[in-house]
Amino acid sequence: MEFLEYQKKDNQDDIRVVIERFAQGQLKDGDAVSIKGTLHRIKEMSGFAFVNVRSFGVVFQCIWDEAASKCNIKDFSVEECVVIGGKIIAEERSSLGFDIKIEEMTRVSGKAAVPPVEISNSRKIDNLNLNTLLDNRVLTLRNPKVRAIMRIADGILHGFHEFLRKEGFTEFVPPKMVHSGAEGGADMFEVDYFGKKAYLNQSPQMYKQIMVGVLTKAYTVGPVFRAEKYSTNRHINEFQGLDLEMGFINSFEDLMELEARMFQYLYKMLNEEYAAELEFFLGKGGNLPELTTFPKIKFMEAKKLFADAHPGTVGQQAMLEPDFAPEEEKWIGEYFNREYQTPVVFVTHYPTVKRPFYTMEDPADPTYSFSFDMFLNGLEVTTGGQRIHDYEMQIAKMKKRGMDIGEFEDYLTMHKYGMPPHGGMGLGLERIVQNILGLDNIKMATAFPRDRDRLNP
Amino acid sequence: MEFLEYQKKDNQDDIRVVIERFAQGQLKDGDAVSIKGTLHRIKEMSGFAFVNVRSFGVVFQCIWDEAASKCNIKDFSVEECVVIGGKIIAEERSSLGFDIKIEEMTRVSGKAAVPPVEISNSRKIDNLNLNTLLDNRVLTLRNPKVRAIMRIADGILHGFHEFLRKEGFTEFVPPKMVHSGAEGGADMFEVDYFGKKAYLNQSPQMYKQIMVGVLTKAYTVGPVFRAEKYSTNRHINEFQGLDLEMGFINSFEDLMELEARMFQYLYKMLNEEYAAELEFFLGKGGNLPELTTFPKIKFMEAKKLFADAHPGTVGQQAMLEPDFAPEEEKWIGEYFNREYQTPVVFVTHYPTVKRPFYTMEDPADPTYSFSFDMFLNGLEVTTGGQRIHDYEMQIAKMKKRGMDIGEFEDYLTMHKYGMPPHGGMGLGLERIVQNILGLDNIKMATAFPRDRDRLNP
Repeated sequence: MEFLEYQKKDNQDDIRVVIERFAQGQLKDGDAVSIKGTLHRIKEMSGFAFVNVRSFGVVFQCIWDEAASKCNIKDFSVEECVVIGGKIIAEERSSLGFDIKIEEMTRVSGKAAVPPVEISNSRKIDNLNLNTLLDNRVLTLRNPKVRAIMRIADGILHGFHEFLRKEGFTEFVPPKMVHSGAEGGADMFEVDYFGKKAYLNQSPQMYKQIMVGVLTKAYTVGPVFRAEKYSTNRHINEFQGLDLEMGFINSFEDLMELEARMFQYLYKMLNEEYAAELEFFLGKGGNLPELTTFPKIKFMEAKKLFADAHPGTVGQQAMLEPDFAPEEEKWIGEYFNREYQTPVVFVTHYPTVKRPFYTMEDPADPTYSFSFDMFLNGLEVTTGGQRIHDYEMQIAKMKKRGMDIGEFEDYLTMHKYGMPPHGGMGLGLERIVQNILGLDNIKMATAFPRDRDRLNP
Repeated sequence: MEFLEYQKKDNQDDIRVVIERFAQGQLKDGDAVSIKGTLHRIKEMSGFAFVNVRSFGVVFQCIWDEAASKCNIKDFSVEECVVIGGKIIAEERSSLGFDIKIEEMTRVSGKAAVPPVEISNSRKIDNLNLNTLLDNRVLTLRNPKVRAIMRIADGILHGFHEFLRKEGFTEFVPPKMVHSGAEGGADMFEVDYFGKKAYLNQSPQMYKQIMVGVLTKAYTVGPVFRAEKYSTNRHINEFQGLDLEMGFINSFEDLMELEARMFQYLYKMLNEEYAAELEFFLGKGGNLPELTTFPKIKFMEAKKLFADAHPGTVGQQAMLEPDFAPEEEKWIGEYFNREYQTPVVFVTHYPTVKRPFYTMEDPADPTYSFSFDMFLNGLEVTTGGQRIHDYEMQIAKMKKRGMDIGEFEDYLTMHKYGMPPHGGMGLGLERIVQNILGLDNIKMATAFPRDRDRLNP
């Protein structure tokens, strides 16, 4: 019988290991190294060539020399994967402190065709129109700046998991194919379920509330499907939802407190662990701000702030709408940034009429609800609030809204058999990424966006 | 302007905090406490009652006394959520070392109806037939033993993320709505996508390979949809896939080594952090075994082992089939458990004909492929292998299989423009949970299973 050798090996052919060992003085000028990577850019001169290689987000320079290298640079093309055997050359002008002199280079991929887009040129990739960028997604993702966006998304996912676990939350898995929708049915994709109709869930709302009855603090990360027809720079039809729900709350402010600490945690973690990726967007040494001030303002007060600053019809019109227009969100964001030096603000007490049927109303004034949105840099990134936990209250509200109680039997089961005061919130991964990095379109914030016309790649 | 108070508060009304403080001597007999929880069981006697309360998986005993408690126990029912004000009573017979004497008790949920299943009785819940268990899922999930299953799933998700991050993997988000399937189209759920046909992806295979070209080491966690009609105790139509893919591998054994260490990590983590949950299934003090021995055996050799142990038609028949029947998997698992005292075995070199079109064949004998399954306790829990990275080789194999190359244009783009040798694996969360806990049916291993007839809750 053969047994597997499962001890972890040192990855000495990983450029990051070489960089670390060089920095620690374990590798020095003239030492032999073997490195794996992808040919990023080749600049041929007479008798020698600068060969940029990329690996794990690092682009490093190798030198090919006709006289000294046992390979012909003309046999290689960009995007081919190679193993390079060579020597460290200390080089002060290199940001790594060294180049690598190529002695041998072996292709481990197949031969690569010439890419239709210049992957190594971030400026050109930046200037592609959105459809070209996305049509060529398999290749444009390889650009270091585009890759950095995907890494930031990874960082936010990581931070969300890690922070909630430290807070005592348990992850659960809700189904995505359901017999009816969380919010009552509009804008859902229909699925042929063995000849019956099913739908892709718009929200794990029902499931996360059920799990509060089981776990008290529950969260889930997964795709959310919205068959919305409109096309804006901040909507996609499938997004990664970050959803949490918490039982035994004292007030919906408990949720805002949790979220404030979560964003502090996320920003700090990104600054510490994703500095190289942030630099592409925030400039050399660029950092996300330290979050220390979390203003909170009631919906109607925010409306009034806006109206006071916009005398005449613009302000009057704003006061009549039960929700914010994008310009109003932007203005509110700018106001708080200017007046309180903070990119974040909580808007609370949204009109009950604009919130879902499960939202708890403010008993002091049921026109408004125990709900909130969090704005980040003038863009709404979270919606949350306290839910109704009492069976009779929930039934009464659904009846008032003309809803079919029978459709919600499973949902109402939890209320019928005891639920603590609870609430939660939902965040969209792509919208946070877009917001933090200042991307023009949310479709740039995810690897493979879906819109009305795009199912590829 | 108001600002949010966002300092984390001590959760002194969390039973786990009380337990810890009691163990550390910070709380002692006679001290006042306030605790939140759900009424789990009420046993009324003459003039007093034992009131079991549960919170975060802990069931603890409170004592109601007609003379001393300022509330009437008859006003309360099980499943109601309460806040209890009371005093610690040191009690050696309690596993926590104390009971809580109820002074005040306030209901914070609505009134609860009498549940149709006895949530606090694990033996009765265990004996429910599967449909009753699942029809009443909103309530049966609240049973501590059922809850423990969900917690173990959480633990495996957590371990998968944590282990892969330590190994340098980056998480990415693939789309679930696609224009065609990863494996070529059978068994897919169809979606009405704004009047066009789309499908729910059967596997993130294409996307994880694309992301190897971007991230080198990539993983994703998310729902996988399979419109398979058969109903067995180990199939569901929507499961949580744990998928990873790794570039610049030397051989597909690199993947097996990674997986061996991953399961060592998972088992150790579950033993350390989920001991209370494991006890429900492995008995008092029960542990998952330490994994130290990882036998590997070629597919044909495993077949021969089975055939030699089953002379006659059973063995002869087995040799003719290019895959394992469930009885064979079980027997192989038992064999290795008996002979090598290990619950795990890697079976390698599966017949090429039984593996997908992207599987790398063994050049020494193309009848077999560079692929593997991992068996755990006689059940397949992983499928993995090396993928074809060369464009010409992939095209040739697809043509040989009569596939429509045009349908796979995006897929083939990555091969055309350079891919390192790579491979990966896919695991199903629910199957691992089922396997580790020895559950009869996979539908018990997830909160809200989907089968041909079940879309609720």
